[in-house]
Amino acid sequence: MTARVIDGTAVARRVREDVGRGVAQLVAAGGRAPGLATVLVGDDPASEVYVRNKRRLCVAAGMQDLHRHLPGDVDQASAAALVDELAADPQVSGILLQLPTPRHLDSDALIARIPAEKDVDGLTTANAGLLAQGRPGLRPCTPAGVMALLDEYDVPLAGAEAVVVGRSVLVGKPMAQLLLARHATVTVCHSRTRDLPEVCRRADVLVVAAGIRGLVGRDAVKAGATVIDVGIHRGDDGLVGDVESDAVAEVAGALTPVPGGVGPMTIAMLLANTLTAARVQQGLAD
Amino acid sequence: MTARVIDGTAVARRVREDVGRGVAQLVAAGGRAPGLATVLVGDDPASEVYVRNKRRLCVAAGMQDLHRHLPGDVDQASAAALVDELAADPQVSGILLQLPTPRHLDSDALIARIPAEKDVDGLTTANAGLLAQGRPGLRPCTPAGVMALLDEYDVPLAGAEAVVVGRSVLVGKPMAQLLLARHATVTVCHSRTRDLPEVCRRADVLVVAAGIRGLVGRDAVKAGATVIDVGIHRGDDGLVGDVESDAVAEVAGALTPVPGGVGPMTIAMLLANTLTAARVQQGLAD
Repeated sequence: MTARVIDGTAVARRVREDVGRGVAQLVAAGGRAPGLATVLVGDDPASEVYVRNKRRLCVAAGMQDLHRHLPGDVDQASAAALVDELAADPQVSGILLQLPTPRHLDSDALIARIPAEKDVDGLTTANAGLLAQGRPGLRPCTPAGVMALLDEYDVPLAGAEAVVVGRSVLVGKPMAQLLLARHATVTVCHSRTRDLPEVCRRADVLVVAAGIRGLVGRDAVKAGATVIDVGIHRGDDGLVGDVESDAVAEVAGALTPVPGGVGPMTIAMLLANTLTAARVQQGLAD
Repeated sequence: MTARVIDGTAVARRVREDVGRGVAQLVAAGGRAPGLATVLVGDDPASEVYVRNKRRLCVAAGMQDLHRHLPGDVDQASAAALVDELAADPQVSGILLQLPTPRHLDSDALIARIPAEKDVDGLTTANAGLLAQGRPGLRPCTPAGVMALLDEYDVPLAGAEAVVVGRSVLVGKPMAQLLLARHATVTVCHSRTRDLPEVCRRADVLVVAAGIRGLVGRDAVKAGATVIDVGIHRGDDGLVGDVESDAVAEVAGALTPVPGGVGPMTIAMLLANTLTAARVQQGLAD
């Protein structure tokens, strides 16, 4: 058996097209085009690539690119002042602070200044609380993207055993909350889990977000399981994930590739969040 | 084998004595005695009993009882105004809105007015977010009380399999977060879980907070497991929990009784939270 490939590139394209239609409808209804303010501090080449992609896809979806660039040696007060300016600007629907920021800055303190309704990365404590309490709010993009993939491939979640490997604030923890909200029985594993393969083998849906290359092998996957690989590592032979994909593909029912799985979904959900934020701010939410 | 009885009454007394000493130290250090503002709306007899107990133990710990009583037909604006008054009052360290409020009131909207630093019940979205992100904050009293019991009885948590039955915002969800923060491998079960006994049998630590009398029987408990029963129901023969205690006591390693298990811990942790809140507000935190 070879696992079905979950094509994140194709799903992400459809999500972005949906967002583009939503933007057009918003404008046709008399609203303003959503504006995304990406904030890049310094000149890290990888961060520049990420931000450039976000800006390009933002424009392609019909949104305003309100990018701001700060010098790498900017002080905390000036960076905070920029966030405050964007928070107050009605043209700005969403604010995304590209991480990591240079070490001398307190990025948590900067994120805390982003109003919850403009927090399109879903990283603020306010949005984490809304998610934990099951209230409406902006969800972190990567876990939201995983949910969109699962839905697109009609993966049953209610009553399913879902196992999340990793407990980061950015991915693992919100992922568990989102799966729980869809009525899965959810287990969270991590570096202190005693027998990781045994726990993972219980999973009908296995989401691996540990940041450890090749952590999950064939022995950790139940036959027919849906496996989502959030990891991304640069190897000698290109990008690879947290899952030993060749071996796991022999037992899993479906598997996301790396690249082309979860990766493209993250930006797509950022755009979806920005549209949602604009609708709410303009009083035109569904 | 008969399970060791986890004596919540005794542990709660020790916690309250610790709080009493902490209050005395705070006052000796030049601080103000913490003030707890319980807010009771209407005359529900059960709520009156709960509030009376909280006030009595608050005074016994050396704190100020700043109780407020509103008539059952108070309107939303007046109730909100009282919360705002307490929020602004420096004598008030903690605000506890006794739930449920009469149906015509929006209790969520009232709770949302409680400043996070006075939210000694740990119910606000802000404190839920702090817990979800692993930041310091006031934790919900019942799950915090369960953690205190587990610690008092030296139950190993790091690497242990913990199963939480129930996913309420008040107990199940924060319970899972607290166990995860202590490095347990945590599974959350609920009404949609396919085979509840099977999942529960994995648990080294089983916390049952489903609100269903006798839900967890002997077949759902691994030999030697620690079982925490958060349920409380009035039966023909007194109070009973979510766990079939006689049968489970034969297999479990340790078990909380009902009454006298988790129940007394909830008020004890409320007092502990009020002391913590007062220390933080007065700039005298550890």
